[in-house]
Amino acid sequence: MEALYEEQPPPFEMGVVVSKRVFNQIGEGYDCVQVLVDQFQKIGLIVDRVAGLNDEFLKIAAPVEVLGKAAAELRLKKRTQIGVDLQFEWDEADAFIKQSDGSLFSWCERFRCYKHMIYGIVNKSNSAIILKSDCREIRWQPGKPLLWKLEKEAIVKEVFPIHDDIKRKRLLKCWALNWRGLTHQPLDEIYAYYGAKIAIYFAFIGMYTKWLLFPAAFGIFVQLVDFGSLQFLVLPFFFICIISWAVFFLQFWKRKNSTLLARWHICYSVGAAYKYMDTEWSSFHSSVGSIKFGADKTEKEKFQREEWFGHMLRFRNDAIIILSIICLQLPFELAYAHLYEIIGSDIIKFGLTAIYLFAIQYFTQIGGKVSVKLIKREKNENSEYRANSLIYKVFGLYFMQSYIGLLYHAILHRNFMTLRQVITQRLIISEVLENLMENSLPYIKYSYRKYRAVRNKRKREKGMAARKSYFNSRVEKEYFKPIYAASVGDELEDGLFDEFLELALQFGMIMMFACAFPPAFAFAALNNVTEIRADALKILAMYRRPVPRVAATIGAWLNIFQFLIVVSICTNCILLVCLYDREGNWNISPGLAAILIMEHVLLLIKFGFSKIVPEEPDWVKANRMKNATQAQNMCSKQLLRNISGRTLVTCTPNAD
Amino acid sequence: MEALYEEQPPPFEMGVVVSKRVFNQIGEGYDCVQVLVDQFQKIGLIVDRVAGLNDEFLKIAAPVEVLGKAAAELRLKKRTQIGVDLQFEWDEADAFIKQSDGSLFSWCERFRCYKHMIYGIVNKSNSAIILKSDCREIRWQPGKPLLWKLEKEAIVKEVFPIHDDIKRKRLLKCWALNWRGLTHQPLDEIYAYYGAKIAIYFAFIGMYTKWLLFPAAFGIFVQLVDFGSLQFLVLPFFFICIISWAVFFLQFWKRKNSTLLARWHICYSVGAAYKYMDTEWSSFHSSVGSIKFGADKTEKEKFQREEWFGHMLRFRNDAIIILSIICLQLPFELAYAHLYEIIGSDIIKFGLTAIYLFAIQYFTQIGGKVSVKLIKREKNENSEYRANSLIYKVFGLYFMQSYIGLLYHAILHRNFMTLRQVITQRLIISEVLENLMENSLPYIKYSYRKYRAVRNKRKREKGMAARKSYFNSRVEKEYFKPIYAASVGDELEDGLFDEFLELALQFGMIMMFACAFPPAFAFAALNNVTEIRADALKILAMYRRPVPRVAATIGAWLNIFQFLIVVSICTNCILLVCLYDREGNWNISPGLAAILIMEHVLLLIKFGFSKIVPEEPDWVKANRMKNATQAQNMCSKQLLRNISGRTLVTCTPNAD
Repeated sequence: MEALYEEQPPPFEMGVVVSKRVFNQIGEGYDCVQVLVDQFQKIGLIVDRVAGLNDEFLKIAAPVEVLGKAAAELRLKKRTQIGVDLQFEWDEADAFIKQSDGSLFSWCERFRCYKHMIYGIVNKSNSAIILKSDCREIRWQPGKPLLWKLEKEAIVKEVFPIHDDIKRKRLLKCWALNWRGLTHQPLDEIYAYYGAKIAIYFAFIGMYTKWLLFPAAFGIFVQLVDFGSLQFLVLPFFFICIISWAVFFLQFWKRKNSTLLARWHICYSVGAAYKYMDTEWSSFHSSVGSIKFGADKTEKEKFQREEWFGHMLRFRNDAIIILSIICLQLPFELAYAHLYEIIGSDIIKFGLTAIYLFAIQYFTQIGGKVSVKLIKREKNENSEYRANSLIYKVFGLYFMQSYIGLLYHAILHRNFMTLRQVITQRLIISEVLENLMENSLPYIKYSYRKYRAVRNKRKREKGMAARKSYFNSRVEKEYFKPIYAASVGDELEDGLFDEFLELALQFGMIMMFACAFPPAFAFAALNNVTEIRADALKILAMYRRPVPRVAATIGAWLNIFQFLIVVSICTNCILLVCLYDREGNWNISPGLAAILIMEHVLLLIKFGFSKIVPEEPDWVKANRMKNATQAQNMCSKQLLRNISGRTLVTCTPNAD
Repeated sequence: MEALYEEQPPPFEMGVVVSKRVFNQIGEGYDCVQVLVDQFQKIGLIVDRVAGLNDEFLKIAAPVEVLGKAAAELRLKKRTQIGVDLQFEWDEADAFIKQSDGSLFSWCERFRCYKHMIYGIVNKSNSAIILKSDCREIRWQPGKPLLWKLEKEAIVKEVFPIHDDIKRKRLLKCWALNWRGLTHQPLDEIYAYYGAKIAIYFAFIGMYTKWLLFPAAFGIFVQLVDFGSLQFLVLPFFFICIISWAVFFLQFWKRKNSTLLARWHICYSVGAAYKYMDTEWSSFHSSVGSIKFGADKTEKEKFQREEWFGHMLRFRNDAIIILSIICLQLPFELAYAHLYEIIGSDIIKFGLTAIYLFAIQYFTQIGGKVSVKLIKREKNENSEYRANSLIYKVFGLYFMQSYIGLLYHAILHRNFMTLRQVITQRLIISEVLENLMENSLPYIKYSYRKYRAVRNKRKREKGMAARKSYFNSRVEKEYFKPIYAASVGDELEDGLFDEFLELALQFGMIMMFACAFPPAFAFAALNNVTEIRADALKILAMYRRPVPRVAATIGAWLNIFQFLIVVSICTNCILLVCLYDREGNWNISPGLAAILIMEHVLLLIKFGFSKIVPEEPDWVKANRMKNATQAQNMCSKQLLRNISGRTLVTCTPNAD
């Protein structure tokens, strides 16, 4: 068994940054960094010390047995050969399915194990140990974790996952720089290297771009060909095709998603429940206390009261956000659009746009911060729900900002030239600029940090003997790179938030104004082909390796895409009216208009309200989950012995 | 343990009808009925022979140990104390949760066990056994089941579940005749006596009626009070309230449903998958062959091809039904409505209605039969799906039949008086008549069968010595009662189909024309209060005890209710236009109308198409299920020993 895993030394996957001390006190007793390294080695980790410009770096690798032991301590649930998820045990490792790259643990699992191990080093003796750092003395109390202590004393600056250079270079070659692949991507390798969340994003953008080719071709066709007397039928037909296309796309995406999850052996059917149980169960369990389900009626009532209180709180917060968007942001956006329409002078227009752009930056920042604050007040049961809540709120802001001005131009002023100009401009210029910015900004940050580090080093070394500059270590370069973080609420989301936001805004732009400007689909397709490679390059070369996150689906973004389809049905209808009725002959009386508006509001209520009341009471869910966990724990060992006793065919279904 | 179950003799729950033979050949060797009784007694069943007028009845009861043995043979999955479903084993019976009435098995499980036992009696000897019946000789071949043989020879006429008279009388008293309870019903007892499907129907109608009280009161209020200058705002406000009410009602029903299932320990979260796995897995597994999932790419492709072929077939069938409804039924309904509108003479009107009523009876019959035939051609994976498919198709027919005429009166002729008349008439008169019919028809059938039996008996006994008439056995009375069957497709559905259909048509009637006639809700509420008791009386007294069916939800009917809400949003908008714009001043140009129609069609497509493509590919589902089953089977025994070793608190959560 060992021979199977030990073919090559394990790669270094975690980095610990330690501030450099002036003296290297060798033999002077308990140097804190030396103690840390010793402790790491004691639990079986392989440590490589690298001296940098101002800091020292500990690169950490773990052989698979060490990871396995940590996984067993963590009671990690893992997919077995027979397809159920059971607690990992090292003795029965053969019972568990291997990853497609042959390793036992996925990157996400490895990361959890590393974290568990390096933060799990405690003082096991009965008395405090005195550690030394420069002239300071640090008391490592018994039972306290070492790394927390050193972090508190600012000796350990940071712990972060580091790139595996061999795999990174392979990915760079076959993925980021493989421009001829168009939408093709090595998804399995991306999953193995980055984890499910990032792989699913790239799978989504890949499929979306591939599907975009049809409406892109159709859009150009509609734009270029003259259909003579049937011209008036073309746009409605295009509209119907586009909507059907979008509906089918999302349905097939769901299928693709579940196929991918089956391929990666991620539990899907009880998707939310699984994660909930695995990582958040303990905290949830303690927060609701040790309620004996059902035995006591008052306990259940308390449970229900808490559930409804949570709903009320969430409802209130949503209402605050929606009202502030309507009362504060909407007038502002309309005022800008109106001023832009009535002002004749180009210079004033330019100034106005500059002020506007400055103001919305500020607006979005505030909106994001308020949303995060509101969400933190909520008692949400898991962090995924919280992340989704943030996504909806922030998307609301961006939705208003992106489309209201356009609708104003189109509907009130019937100014289709401006509309088309703005769409083209946003799709091409702004996305190109954004891509450039996205890729150059991290590089500028990286360069600045490097420059500062070198300068600091020079300053310090002025008085000392000239020593060799160490700036050649890869790990230090990575330390200087920025973190892959979201523009808002970085606790809840990482950089994928911005990628998805960009994609959703693009989708909304091309769908909502499909009838006004059919070639927009072609621009979007073109843009996305470059976007795939640019994003790949970014996370491979520009940023630190992202912390892996468990996610089975694209979550809230799918609902946002669904919502955009419904909205685009309405907006395209309005656009068609405006396009075909340029003289305004088709009059509509106020009564009929009122009823039409009411109908649409009611349809919105119908499909919106269904989401407010969850279909399963919390206590039923909690009860079910508790039971499932208990059962799993109980039969785990027995089952494992049964499984590993059998010879099994490997079942790794291929994707379609 | 035995002391716990053996407090009272088990009730007789199954009846076997055997045709009476002329001679009672005692001591003449192998009388077939005597052999049957002996065999029953050999496997531990308690048999009571009752002589009837023309037939003989075997009443069968089973002690709990006998049931338990059968359940273990059936590999019945049952909820254990720790909340997971495991295969039943008699030695570990304490590990399984008891029903709320203290029995170990639910009625549905008992029924399956009875069926398994009485149809499982085979000739275990090596040679055929010669059985005698009157002058005939029957060869019971080795390895063949006895009951099938006797059924083929027409000696056993029927096997049916019989009422437990003690429980039935208790239910009659506290449920069917408890008129003061209004919407309150003893749901747990209904579940224990009839199984989940019927209990859930009564829970639904109870909750629906309770919720109806609000719009009933509101509707009467709107009708009676004059709001002066604000009168024109009242109907739109009523409309909005009603739609919100309906949406919330359905959401809360889903919650109630899951609460009930948790109370009855029925597996919900993987609802469909559970039943699928339990009863249909073996057949499904054999039909798709012994596919090694994933190992082979072509196998997976074959699997996918089959899946898509199934979709195409289903899509074609749906298209046939929809087209025939639109092309055949719609013109017919419109022709009737139009003729009714233009004919002046009352006599001709009456004749027309008579012809119409006769024709639609015929129509619906044909439609139902065609639907059943089409569905049987489909390769549906489970019978529940097939039943739902039938529900949708038949509801389509009834939908056209019930509402199109009304819409014609309302929209084209703006004849609101006729509309209100028709609604009132349908809600009150027709429902009262239907209730009467529903309750009297089975009684008439019962009386006729009884009369014929007595007459036959008299005829036969003319030549013979006058013997005592046996017409006093309860089981014979039950045998004369009709079966609780659906009006269409009785293989797929039972009598609940008609109850739900009635309820859905009523809901559509009051919702779709809410603005035209607000007091309709009051009529519906009144009607439902009586409906609850009438239905209860019907299945307690008028029909045989229904065969229990497993069902976790109200299934397709929920979707139909949701659909009716969406439709009612549109129809009420149209009604409001007609009501407020009696002079037709609010003109709408053809272009605008076309676009509005297109918008609505697209919205329909958006929400309809999502249902066509399933979210999870079949092979993923099958794979998952296979694995789950395997795992369960493996750890079952070990787990059971662990569980029964512990002392556990009973966890029977109460309902809210």
